[in-house]
Amino acid sequence: MTATWDTRPWPALKERQDASLPDRFARSAAERPDGTVEEVLGWLGRRRAQVPFAVERIPFHALDGWSSEPGTGNLVHRSGRFFTVEGLHVRIGEQPGCVEWHQPVIVQPEVGILGVLAREFDGVLHFLMQAKMEPGNPGLLQLSPTVQATYSNYTKVHKGAAVRYLEYFTDPSQGRVLADTLQSEHGSWFHRKRNRNMVVEAVGPVPEHEDFRWLTLGQIHELLRHDNTVNLDARSALAGLYVPGTPGALHSDTELLSWLAAQRSVTPIRSTRVPLAGLPSWTYGDSSVDHEDGLHFRVVALSVQAGNREVGHWTQPLFEPREQGVVAFLTRTVEGVPHVLARARAEGGFLDAELGPTVQCQPGTYAHLPATDRPPFLDRVLAADPSRIRFSALLSEEGGRFLNAVSRYLIVEADESDAPFDTPPGFRWVSRDQLAVLTRYSHYVTIQARTLLLCLNSLDA
Amino acid sequence: MTATWDTRPWPALKERQDASLPDRFARSAAERPDGTVEEVLGWLGRRRAQVPFAVERIPFHALDGWSSEPGTGNLVHRSGRFFTVEGLHVRIGEQPGCVEWHQPVIVQPEVGILGVLAREFDGVLHFLMQAKMEPGNPGLLQLSPTVQATYSNYTKVHKGAAVRYLEYFTDPSQGRVLADTLQSEHGSWFHRKRNRNMVVEAVGPVPEHEDFRWLTLGQIHELLRHDNTVNLDARSALAGLYVPGTPGALHSDTELLSWLAAQRSVTPIRSTRVPLAGLPSWTYGDSSVDHEDGLHFRVVALSVQAGNREVGHWTQPLFEPREQGVVAFLTRTVEGVPHVLARARAEGGFLDAELGPTVQCQPGTYAHLPATDRPPFLDRVLAADPSRIRFSALLSEEGGRFLNAVSRYLIVEADESDAPFDTPPGFRWVSRDQLAVLTRYSHYVTIQARTLLLCLNSLDA
Repeated sequence: MTATWDTRPWPALKERQDASLPDRFARSAAERPDGTVEEVLGWLGRRRAQVPFAVERIPFHALDGWSSEPGTGNLVHRSGRFFTVEGLHVRIGEQPGCVEWHQPVIVQPEVGILGVLAREFDGVLHFLMQAKMEPGNPGLLQLSPTVQATYSNYTKVHKGAAVRYLEYFTDPSQGRVLADTLQSEHGSWFHRKRNRNMVVEAVGPVPEHEDFRWLTLGQIHELLRHDNTVNLDARSALAGLYVPGTPGALHSDTELLSWLAAQRSVTPIRSTRVPLAGLPSWTYGDSSVDHEDGLHFRVVALSVQAGNREVGHWTQPLFEPREQGVVAFLTRTVEGVPHVLARARAEGGFLDAELGPTVQCQPGTYAHLPATDRPPFLDRVLAADPSRIRFSALLSEEGGRFLNAVSRYLIVEADESDAPFDTPPGFRWVSRDQLAVLTRYSHYVTIQARTLLLCLNSLDA
Repeated sequence: MTATWDTRPWPALKERQDASLPDRFARSAAERPDGTVEEVLGWLGRRRAQVPFAVERIPFHALDGWSSEPGTGNLVHRSGRFFTVEGLHVRIGEQPGCVEWHQPVIVQPEVGILGVLAREFDGVLHFLMQAKMEPGNPGLLQLSPTVQATYSNYTKVHKGAAVRYLEYFTDPSQGRVLADTLQSEHGSWFHRKRNRNMVVEAVGPVPEHEDFRWLTLGQIHELLRHDNTVNLDARSALAGLYVPGTPGALHSDTELLSWLAAQRSVTPIRSTRVPLAGLPSWTYGDSSVDHEDGLHFRVVALSVQAGNREVGHWTQPLFEPREQGVVAFLTRTVEGVPHVLARARAEGGFLDAELGPTVQCQPGTYAHLPATDRPPFLDRVLAADPSRIRFSALLSEEGGRFLNAVSRYLIVEADESDAPFDTPPGFRWVSRDQLAVLTRYSHYVTIQARTLLLCLNSLDA
């Protein structure tokens, strides 16, 4: 038997955790020079004015490259790539408490990259943010990660321009990985979608481009408070950065993981993809697929003209929520350690329940119901005294798939009467640090809870 | 707005990690009194002799309560519970490197409990192990967790006797949770199966029963070296116990997680459930479903007569591998820190790739192929000098679903010519402690790698 492998001497061990990172992130979060945020907002405004964008609603039959698949009615692209819009039959829980429904769903098995490039300038970490248009965004253009690429993008299925800076994320030797996790996306709208959320620190000079700016964490935190300015993918990628250290919490890590395992066990998610045509409770029209009671969301089609995208013109289906949502964490600081009231959420597109916000809903769905039938804590969040609202901004979801999907994101300080230690079933107090550790692993923290984690981190400075 | 929730004062924070656990596990692992293992083997032998078991192969039409579903040919139970045997169409990876096949698969969405009860006697942790029969086990009876219950078991769908000691695992206030994670099962045979792997420490006296014995970790480690003695579920539940502490490794934790995220991204797993009847490459006979080349496994049916199970007589389908497998970790100790050579495994029933053994296969499948087409490291493991084999035993997989599914489990110390630092694609050196941390989270470490982690831990004392 011969040795065919490389036999160079082995390297020395390295530290499993980089002890310098918490300080470096804190320094970047504290760096927020006066007036610079206004300057960034001005730059976003200029880019919005300079690059011609036009978005128009069209009927399904006017989609180009997309068609309604014979037999199923599913919306599919002729390349077989990108994504499909199909029906989903969801059953959650075991008998007799099983809940069941049908809904349209976006199926996109390929894993995209949401990558933020970092670099140190004058001893302070900066992050390369992009002014990027997505057709579903309110205002179209938002502050986005350096790279936001589907597998189709970066293998050039649609024959567009190369994705700028992509090489830092596909070839790790070009930099140093600070965070990298496959995360779930919206489980109510996507079936089993995962994206790779990455932050990579460049080791050498990085070429400049007019669509990109280096910003500190402090600047990004401040921009987060401006409505519809920091996009979903940027929030998701940067949420994984915070490095936790507090050793105490209301529940031990094992107790928390055990509670989540129990929640997952009693709410197994059985989902079956079914044809979009004939989906019970949904009406398939010429230019939209609608819920029969006008609830939840609808499927629509857009024609898009854009100046700075890989492809200048295209059409595509999107999901459009029927109203503005509310996404909130109730928080309490116990012995100096911030905690959030997390809820285990079993969404139809997930494999298993994940930790989500205290409140996440479209309030209109419940407006006609008595208070006892409305989501727990919704009324408390909506009626919270302004002095207890630590964070409030309108933030939108992924504008490449969702049209005007805007929610008010809130962090509300609770008092004991609002939110006790003994929580209703499905809720648990989780320390900010525990939430941050779980964000390093796949399928533990929902995308809405990751946005709220970033909002919570922005309150530190 | 009125306070409807409990307003008792909040408890103090607790430590997120229990600092006393590593010592307590180490003390239990060191406790291995002479002659006691022989005594346990004697007890297992007596139980085997005392309780009448009979297992017989039957044709599919002789299954009672099970039938071949009209239209699909899927094997289903009339209650709609337990599990089904269906077809699976698997595609792994992206074009042009996409790999594709069809296979039968077991579908069982409900989450089972694999629970081991612990208790301290004279300052040493003991674990309550059960002498349990499963029809597919070689020797039928093996050492099993305290509780091994499907949701159907503990909600009594099959109207059998209550599951002994189950209350410790369904009501956490009866004890103290030491480990609790939803883990994947065999991704090549199950579609998306998860079981809840629990270890709970009892706080008060625990009633005795003749089918159960209190054993130390040291005794269990020694029994693990006896062929087909410690069952799969016991190995899986106890693998999560080791509490890691070493701060150094060949790759940092972030580098390791990033590498796994990259592996998961390039091998997306697309699986679609399809009818068992007419499954390409498989032949559906009267008493078995076979691969056309006689490879992999077959689906068979058994009639079972058992004296100490919840139900005394039943019939069921099982999967039977075509030959004995090989499951091995190559290991190297670097600066005193043990490492294993893990391979990212994308199996058809997984959501995403997980960390698996260096080698895991049925060698006969590759016997006719040239060395370059055989699985990497297989030949090195099979030809390893006996002085480098740190662990070797025949261990079987879950006897409730798999018939005579036996593999030789090996831990083989590598030298530099066997296994270099620069590994082939899909392989990575992972420290034992990193593997143990990942075992606390769902869907990171395969069930075969968890068994090997327990084997590795058994070498410490």
